[in-house]
This record gives sequence, C-alpha cells and structure tokens, in this order.
Amino acid sequence: MKTITYQGVEGAFSYLTALKEFGEKNHFRSAQTFKEMFELVRNGEADAAVVPIENSLVGSIYENYDLINQYDMHIIAEHYTKIEHCLLSYPSNEVKSERLKQIKRVLSHPKALEQCSHFFQGHLWMEAVVYMDTAAAAKKIAILKDPSCAAIASAYAGELYGLDILAEKIEDDPRNYTRFVIATQKGSFDYQADKCSLLLQLKHTPGALVEGLKEFSIEGINLTKIESRPLRGSLFEYEFYIDFEFKGRNMREVEQVFNKLHEKVNKLTVLGFYKKGILWTS
Amino acid sequence: MKTITYQGVEGAFSYLTALKEFGEKNHFRSAQTFKEMFELVRNGEADAAVVPIENSLVGSIYENYDLINQYDMHIIAEHYTKIEHCLLSYPSNEVKSERLKQIKRVLSHPKALEQCSHFFQGHLWMEAVVYMDTAAAAKKIAILKDPSCAAIASAYAGELYGLDILAEKIEDDPRNYTRFVIATQKGSFDYQADKCSLLLQLKHTPGALVEGLKEFSIEGINLTKIESRPLRGSLFEYEFYIDFEFKGRNMREVEQVFNKLHEKVNKLTVLGFYKKGILWTS
Repeated sequence: MKTITYQGVEGAFSYLTALKEFGEKNHFRSAQTFKEMFELVRNGEADAAVVPIENSLVGSIYENYDLINQYDMHIIAEHYTKIEHCLLSYPSNEVKSERLKQIKRVLSHPKALEQCSHFFQGHLWMEAVVYMDTAAAAKKIAILKDPSCAAIASAYAGELYGLDILAEKIEDDPRNYTRFVIATQKGSFDYQADKCSLLLQLKHTPGALVEGLKEFSIEGINLTKIESRPLRGSLFEYEFYIDFEFKGRNMREVEQVFNKLHEKVNKLTVLGFYKKGILWTS
Repeated sequence: MKTITYQGVEGAFSYLTALKEFGEKNHFRSAQTFKEMFELVRNGEADAAVVPIENSLVGSIYENYDLINQYDMHIIAEHYTKIEHCLLSYPSNEVKSERLKQIKRVLSHPKALEQCSHFFQGHLWMEAVVYMDTAAAAKKIAILKDPSCAAIASAYAGELYGLDILAEKIEDDPRNYTRFVIATQKGSFDYQADKCSLLLQLKHTPGALVEGLKEFSIEGINLTKIESRPLRGSLFEYEFYIDFEFKGRNMREVEQVFNKLHEKVNKLTVLGFYKKGILWTS
C-alpha cells in the first residue's frame, strides 16, 4: 500500500485522479496547499503527489512546475481528467424543476462559477457565491441541508457527500480538462516511458530556440508542448517548458538528442520520463 | 476624449493600467466580464479595451486570446503592470502594530490571498476570506468601517477608497506582473509598432514548428513568446501563440516573413502590431 497525497478535500478533481491512478486500496492523504504535498513526499510521509500541471482553459500551472523543480522530484505518469460541473443540492422528494426554482445561492470556486456563466444566465434567480474549493462547497451543502443553497462540483463529490444532481455538464465550454502528473522522489517507482518533460534555458543568441528544436525534428521526435516563460527577475529572458513523445525509440536515442542539446543550451533539466496519458472523464 | 473599458471595479489593476495608458482626461467604463468589454468595443460604446493577456505567475489568459480572435479585434499596445499587494484597513489613530493585532478577517480575491501566504503564516490570527475582486474587497472595507476586517489590494485602491496601508509588498513572490494589451476595432487608432502577436496553426507534419520558426531566425527576428495550446476538441493538435519584435526593420520585411510562413502553416492570424511595452509599478 502506498500513500498518495493530493491537494484539496475528498471529492476534488485531484482526489478523483489519485483514485483512478492508484486504486482504492492505497492510502490517500489530503494536503492544504501544493507545497505541503511536496513536503510530504520529500519527508517520506507520502510516496507520490498528484499534481495539476496544466488546464485546457487556464493554461500551465507555473507554481507546480516550480515546485517539481525546487523539490527535485521526478514525473512518473500523467493523466488528463475531464472537468465536468454539476449543480448539487441536499436530497429531497420534490421534483427537480421545483427545487431548481428554490435555489437562491450557489457555492463554488470562483473559476468553476465563471466556467458556468451560461447556466447562471439561464437561471437569473440564483446568486453565485465564492467558495474556496468545489468539493468543499459540496461538503458545506451536505452540512447546511438548506434547499435554497446548492454547490457546483463534480458528480463524484455529489455522490461522496450524499447530494442530488439537479443539473449536469453545466460548464460553458466542454473543452475543459486538467493535466495531472504524478511526482515522486527520484528512483522510487518502476515504470515504462514514452514521453518526457524538459525545462530548457537557452543561450542569448538569435535563433537559439530553432537551433535547439532542430535536434528533435532531425530525429523525427514530436513535441507536444512548448511554452516560454520569463525567467525570475527578468522580463526579457526566458525558460522553456518542452514535452515530447519518443514512442518506438529507445532511451539511448533520446540521450543522444540530450547530448547535442547540452551544447546548445545554458541549462537542461529533465522533469521526468513517463507514459503518455489518456483522457479520463470524472 | 475616448471611452476606455476595463474589467472590474475602480482601483482594480486593469483600471490602473487604463489610467496610465490613456490619462485621466478620458472616460473609463467598467465591465463586469471580459466578454462585456469586447461587446462594448464592437458596439462602438467604447473605443478600446484594457485586456489582461498573461501574468508572470499564472501564465496566459486563454479566454482573452479567444475573445480578441472571436471579436476580430486588433492589439495596438501592450503594458506590463507590477502587481503589488497591500494590507488595507479603515483609518484610525491607533498605532499600526496594535491595529494589525485586531484584524481577524482579510478579504481578497483567492489568487491574491494565495500570493500572500507567507504574510498569513506570519500573522496566524488573521483568517483569509475569499472575495470576488481585490479592489471590490477594498471598497467593502471602506463600507464596513470595522477594525477587525481588512482587504488585500493595490495601494491605489487603498487611496481611492480612503483606507490606510498597514503593510505593503506582502506578496510572496515579487516577480508578479500582468501583461495587458489594448484591443480596438481594426484601423481605429494610429500608432508606431515594433512588436507583433500571431496565432499559428501548423501543418501536421514532423518538424512543422521548426520549419515555421526558421523563417524568423533566418531574418534575425527575435521571438519573445511561444506557447502551444491544444485546439478546441482535440487533446493532440495544437495552435501556437507567438510574439516577436522587429525593431529596426520595416513592415515590408515582416510581410515577407509572413508570405513564407503562409506556405508552411495551415492558418496565420495577426492579432496586432504594437509598440513593445515597459514595466509599470502600481
């Protein structure tokens, strides 16, 4: 049995991803902040952390890229979790249409409220109320037992806290998924890999990026992510997040690309080797 | 006099940026949502919108990239605004150290609360309370007049709502700035440009990215941003946000790069030509 840490309360999308990745027989430990997860893994109190790294609507989560790097962790897996929002209320025998009319306040994380703006436009009598977390909002509704209050959270959170689903898939944009990675101390898991995440700091010469990327295209290796980010304390110098897939190639070929890259960049940090993820719905 | 729209309440960082860009003699119109800003510009009710496009800690704001594209707007300027958070309270004659001890609740946007986590760790008697907006939290404190409540917002918001600054620069990471762009209907302003933002959709061939970027490096043109983003409805196809500077070159040279790029990409959308921005502190 392994101890897996995730940020948030039970029923959060991070928790769901942890469950799907590791299965129920493991021990799941909640952390209040992202940083706390990394502390737990470093101290040996957890074997792995489930870390949201990017979302299709809001982009990369830089804080977690920084933490993986600072804590010298290694990515061993990735997972795409579909974010689907439901309107959840305390159970009652009344018909759903009547119950919808009674709802005055809807609690959720501000991002989730924002992502359901069309729903609120169609239900103008409901007020969106900001709450710290989607699953925490569901938990609160279970405690309040108030038919005039509801939460926006996952169907799973609704089930966990014994709530009814009054409306489902109420997000404006169905293209909403979060990419999670599993971060561990180096060498603590065995696994097969066909994808890699890198952090590159380039030399300050024109065309340095093209020169570096060429090493991948020469080998026919496909990049799946590239993102520039200003370096700390500097508006006009950058580091690059790069992901690539190397299915059908062995590690030696990848290492050869790295050897050539080393000559062309200031710094190359491997964040992890892992198996390419699939999309899961919650 | 021009009408400039911004999202949020008076005193928000968007409002500050609008003031600094256009000066006090213009008319500033608040919008509740980003989308509302674009509607106002399209309908001719506003001449320009002040649009946050990326933040150094949270990354690109995809929603606004989408809106610029959907509403067929043009970027005519960019500005980097430093985000500095202050603890603000209703004025009183007591000494600051005593007033700090009395504070039980601190209202702000969840991102701002999160960005001041070290401050809360050093002031454990204060509870962070989620609010929709930093400047709106400051406004609320001015109405409450309660010495046990404070807000986290800009120094400017404190001044605007007549609050005292009890602590300043309380953010954990000083590398916190937001890049704003000014978006207008095409052809509605005259200006000088040395920077450009592009949206590229590549052909699905290996090395397509390197092939495209080569056209810039051949000309010695420096990219200042590159970011892949999954295309709507697809996990594994991407579009690219690209910014580049072309100081010392004329538009004809830039157009030649575009002509060559057109052959190599599926779609090239120019989001705007504008003058490279400077960093402003609030």
